[in-house]
This record gives sequence, structure tokens and C-alpha cells, in this order.
Amino acid sequence: MELKEYFPMWDRLSAAEQNTLLAASDKRFYKKGQIVHSGLKDCTGLFLVRSGQLRAYIISDEGREITIYRLLSRDICLLSASCIMQSIQFDITIEAEKDTEAWLIAAEAYKSVMQESAPLANYTNEIMASRFSEVMWLMEQIMWNSFDCRLASFLLEESALEGGTTLKITHEIIANHLGTAREVVTRMLRYFQNEGMVKLSRGTVELADINALQKLKDK
Amino acid sequence: MELKEYFPMWDRLSAAEQNTLLAASDKRFYKKGQIVHSGLKDCTGLFLVRSGQLRAYIISDEGREITIYRLLSRDICLLSASCIMQSIQFDITIEAEKDTEAWLIAAEAYKSVMQESAPLANYTNEIMASRFSEVMWLMEQIMWNSFDCRLASFLLEESALEGGTTLKITHEIIANHLGTAREVVTRMLRYFQNEGMVKLSRGTVELADINALQKLKDK
Repeated sequence: MELKEYFPMWDRLSAAEQNTLLAASDKRFYKKGQIVHSGLKDCTGLFLVRSGQLRAYIISDEGREITIYRLLSRDICLLSASCIMQSIQFDITIEAEKDTEAWLIAAEAYKSVMQESAPLANYTNEIMASRFSEVMWLMEQIMWNSFDCRLASFLLEESALEGGTTLKITHEIIANHLGTAREVVTRMLRYFQNEGMVKLSRGTVELADINALQKLKDK
Repeated sequence: MELKEYFPMWDRLSAAEQNTLLAASDKRFYKKGQIVHSGLKDCTGLFLVRSGQLRAYIISDEGREITIYRLLSRDICLLSASCIMQSIQFDITIEAEKDTEAWLIAAEAYKSVMQESAPLANYTNEIMASRFSEVMWLMEQIMWNSFDCRLASFLLEESALEGGTTLKITHEIIANHLGTAREVVTRMLRYFQNEGMVKLSRGTVELADINALQKLKDK
């Protein structure tokens, strides 16, 4: 994918602006499990995902994590370039969940074009608004939905992302996605197994009754 | 306060753009307790607070609330004009917590200027980034901090906003701010009272030991 395919308003940039962005872009490759970006001070730049999968998460002082959103092919990661806006005052960490190819646009170059270009500034606004919306959705889940419902929802999403009903995932990793402790996940998965909704074995969770999980998710 | 005082980049707008915003602005007055804006479909416009206090919150299907942020004098409320960006996909409700005077700028007019003006689009971006940061802070509180710590933090903030140590507030209202049930608030406030941190009487919470509350907040 070419750079311009990520920006629907590309033709409304001047030739000079397009060249600034192109000159500041680099292809990057990350191995599964690699940390791609970490924290506020580290103003890495914007990632434009070509293939693979990135996970953005926050992490507490005690090392507890919660997944904020995922970035797939065609997605743009803005918050890895938080220095382009002074009002972004929170830390996120981004890791490659699968082997990932991406464009990286240097933050300073992007900022210089954005500050002069209404089309790019407005498009950046839309990207931020959609991340903001994902976080609000997540907060509503955490506040109003019980943990059984969030876990069912997570298993169904993973299954959709992986394209199969057998997930290779540990209880520890599920806990990190959902911001809870491993024991809490293990207890609930055992309950799901007793109800016939999943089958557990070492390192895998098999979704045995998709309908029941879906019902739990939508309750 | 004049409209231009809310926009540090006012002088970088053309005379025509300034006039569009001025012509689309109206003074509004809201009584304490009045709902100023409600939901996604209701694209009220941008509120620029002149005096008073607004509260932005989300509300669950069952009527549980959680306060997202407060807007005081000089603050701009963007999310009451969510139709200016199509990627904003969440509902917030805004109520006047005190008698409030505000400018209201019609959403369509603001959008038309923002789409052509890089300075206004970038400034709008900064406003959204700072609301986004407040929500991320709140989510970290909810995820990583225990309820005693969040309640202590809330009481200290209220005391700072009201300028006194005796708060006229019911347990029900505190529960609505913090997204929990009234019983949970009552139980914790009684525990605080036993510890000598607060004194409770009908409809008021008196902060009796600010240092202890501060210590709890920072733990």
C-alpha cells in the first residue's frame, strides 16, 4: 500500500506537502511480540499499518495492562506521535501482536504539514475522534458490563481476528487484555467450561458454543 | 468574555471566518440542574462557558451515571457538537451544575470554518486531545485505583471546586459521579467517618481530616 492510500484527502495536499510526508516516511518491520512504542516521551511518529497487527495498551505502576485498541492493515496509529499535540497527556504502549509491516512517518514532518493544512488537520481530528470513541466504548464496558460478559465478548473478537474457534492464548495474556488478574480469568473460564461454552487445554481456549457466548455478550 | 478570548488563534482567522463564527453565536443561560445537551443526535453546538459549571457524563441503560469531566469558566465543550466530526460515536449528557452563562456556537457554522481553516482545525484537535486525556486519566483511576482512593480524590476535588470543607451533596449524587451504587458510597463514607476523615450529617459531608484524605488519594 502506498502512503496516499491511507489519506483520503491526499489530493488536497500541495505537491510540497505530499513530498514532505513522503520524504519523512520509512518502511519498518516488527517481529511478533516486539514493543513498537512506549510512553509519552518516546515520540516515535505515526504508524500506518501495511500488514500484521498492533496492540495499544496502558500499563499500571504494578505492571497490570489493559488493551485500548487494535490496529490492523490500513489503520493509522496517531498516539505513537503524541508530541504532535501538546494536549495529549497519557502514555500508551504499542506492541506487534503479529509480524507487522508499517510505514513510519516522522512526527515533526507530519506536524509541520498538519499545522498548515486544513485537510490534514481535519483528517487527523477524525482519526483521534475514532480512537476516543473506542476508549469511551471500552469505559462503558468496564463500568456497566459484568466480567463474564466482557470475557465472552473478548473471546468472540479474538476468534473473529484469528479466523478460527481455537485460540492459542494463555490466561495471563487474556488478563492483560482485560485489565484484571490471571486468577479472575481462570475462574471465569472454568465456569464457562462447566457450562459447555469453552473447552480448555494447556495454552488454548476452544470456543465450543458460540451461540451461548454471543448470548452472554449481548445480555 | 468575548468570543475571541476563547480562541488563542483568533487573529489567524480571516475577517470572513471571524464573522461567520460571531454571527452563529448566541448567549445562553441555564439554571442549576438543567440538562443542556443530551445524546448523539442532539447536535447542540459548542458551548463556551462564561460563568458557572457544566458536568459532562455518560449514562447506562439502567440509568447509572459516571462523570467524565467538568467545564468551568473559559472552557469549551466540543462534544455537544459531535456532528462536526463523523467519527465521534458516543453519547454524552451535559447538565448545568451551577447557574451557567455560555456562548453557544451553531455546529454547522463552526464546522464550515474548521474545514477550511488549519488554525481552527488544529485548535479543535487540541481541545479534543485534552478531553481524551481526561477520559484516559479517569479510566486509569477506575482500572487501577481502589474505590476508597477514588472517593477521597472526589471529595478533595469537590472541596477545591466549592472552596470549602463542608460539601452539600447526597450519597446518591456522589454515586452518580463515580459510576457506582449509593450503598457502596454510604458504606465507604461510614468507614471514612469511623476513621475520623469525614463527618456526616443529612445532605452534607464535612471533610474533617484533609491530610488523611490526601494521603489516601496519593497512595
